[in-house]
Amino acid sequence: MPDSLILHEDPVSGNCYKIRLTAALLGIGLERRFYDITNGDTRTKAFLTQVDANGRIPVLQAGDRFLPESNAACFYLADGSQLVPDDRFARADMLRWMFFEQYQHEPNIATMRFWLHVLGEGNLSPQQRAMMETKREGGQAALALMDRHLSTRDWFVAGGNPTLADIALFAYTHVAHEGGFSLNDFGAIRAWIERMRALPRFTPMQG
Amino acid sequence: MPDSLILHEDPVSGNCYKIRLTAALLGIGLERRFYDITNGDTRTKAFLTQVDANGRIPVLQAGDRFLPESNAACFYLADGSQLVPDDRFARADMLRWMFFEQYQHEPNIATMRFWLHVLGEGNLSPQQRAMMETKREGGQAALALMDRHLSTRDWFVAGGNPTLADIALFAYTHVAHEGGFSLNDFGAIRAWIERMRALPRFTPMQG
Repeated sequence: MPDSLILHEDPVSGNCYKIRLTAALLGIGLERRFYDITNGDTRTKAFLTQVDANGRIPVLQAGDRFLPESNAACFYLADGSQLVPDDRFARADMLRWMFFEQYQHEPNIATMRFWLHVLGEGNLSPQQRAMMETKREGGQAALALMDRHLSTRDWFVAGGNPTLADIALFAYTHVAHEGGFSLNDFGAIRAWIERMRALPRFTPMQG
Repeated sequence: MPDSLILHEDPVSGNCYKIRLTAALLGIGLERRFYDITNGDTRTKAFLTQVDANGRIPVLQAGDRFLPESNAACFYLADGSQLVPDDRFARADMLRWMFFEQYQHEPNIATMRFWLHVLGEGNLSPQQRAMMETKREGGQAALALMDRHLSTRDWFVAGGNPTLADIALFAYTHVAHEGGFSLNDFGAIRAWIERMRALPRFTPMQG
């Protein structure tokens, strides 16, 4: 990896936090550049030209190259470390949970948190309001699947250690209440959250 | 990898096709088990218990282990092959496009195709109809980003060769018209589709 690693981020974003948590657990230093996503900071011509044509954060800058997509940035930082399993099936199974996170977890739980906690319910469009029930159900189903999976193991992927799958899923799960989701019925998730917080070099989301 | 590789799939699904295309390009044999997703075949108690508690396909069965999530299954098959770059940044950049595919491409383009081509527009719920415009815009934006990226290169990831990023994005892009998307304005995508079709051992979606 190059010496210069810059995280283009908004501290309110769980997707950005995943990358900071991965770096912290591995003892990797990151320079941070801040943007306000509620203020259009990532849709300026300068951002679109220099950082990401897709107008999104996080983007991890490694030297003069730019890497969007939070889970891809985590993989870049952790490739070859203990956070990525050596076993071929376990490595793919880690990615399985990371794709699940982006497909079934984030679009429901992170979006609900963004709407209720960041934008505020009073500022939502009629179309956003119409989608809330579907997102509540989708997020609830994702949490139920996670809880059942964790009821018989400590970490998402077999092997006895936390992997990037745990980091990716931790980011928005531990603040799910900010999106109106309760973890009261999900004791296995709550115990896993405590295991995450107890990891050496763990760093909190607002740090 | 174990000798026994079974793909639990529905041939109408582009997500399932990704895995078959990866296997074909690598010369890996797959046994196929068929399910009809419009008929609830993946929500039966037997499927939920034995194949995937999430009730979805594709699932790649490797010996006695089950791997959901199409892009994770592709990674499992291709890990260590020429379809996954050796270079650390390129490997992460490949995953970047695969996460983009699942987050911004598939939920728009594949869902529109499922609604219009598989279910039929007359059978959609009012809520699905209300989401169509947002999905059209999101799919169009994803295609525009891909086209601009491909305007200066042959494959999604630097290095001169196709990777899993191309396979993941090819699956629903080459049938985007079935979801009401036109590729007329996207010449770079059309040329890339022809390069994909010309790859040795390429297999079509309905094969």
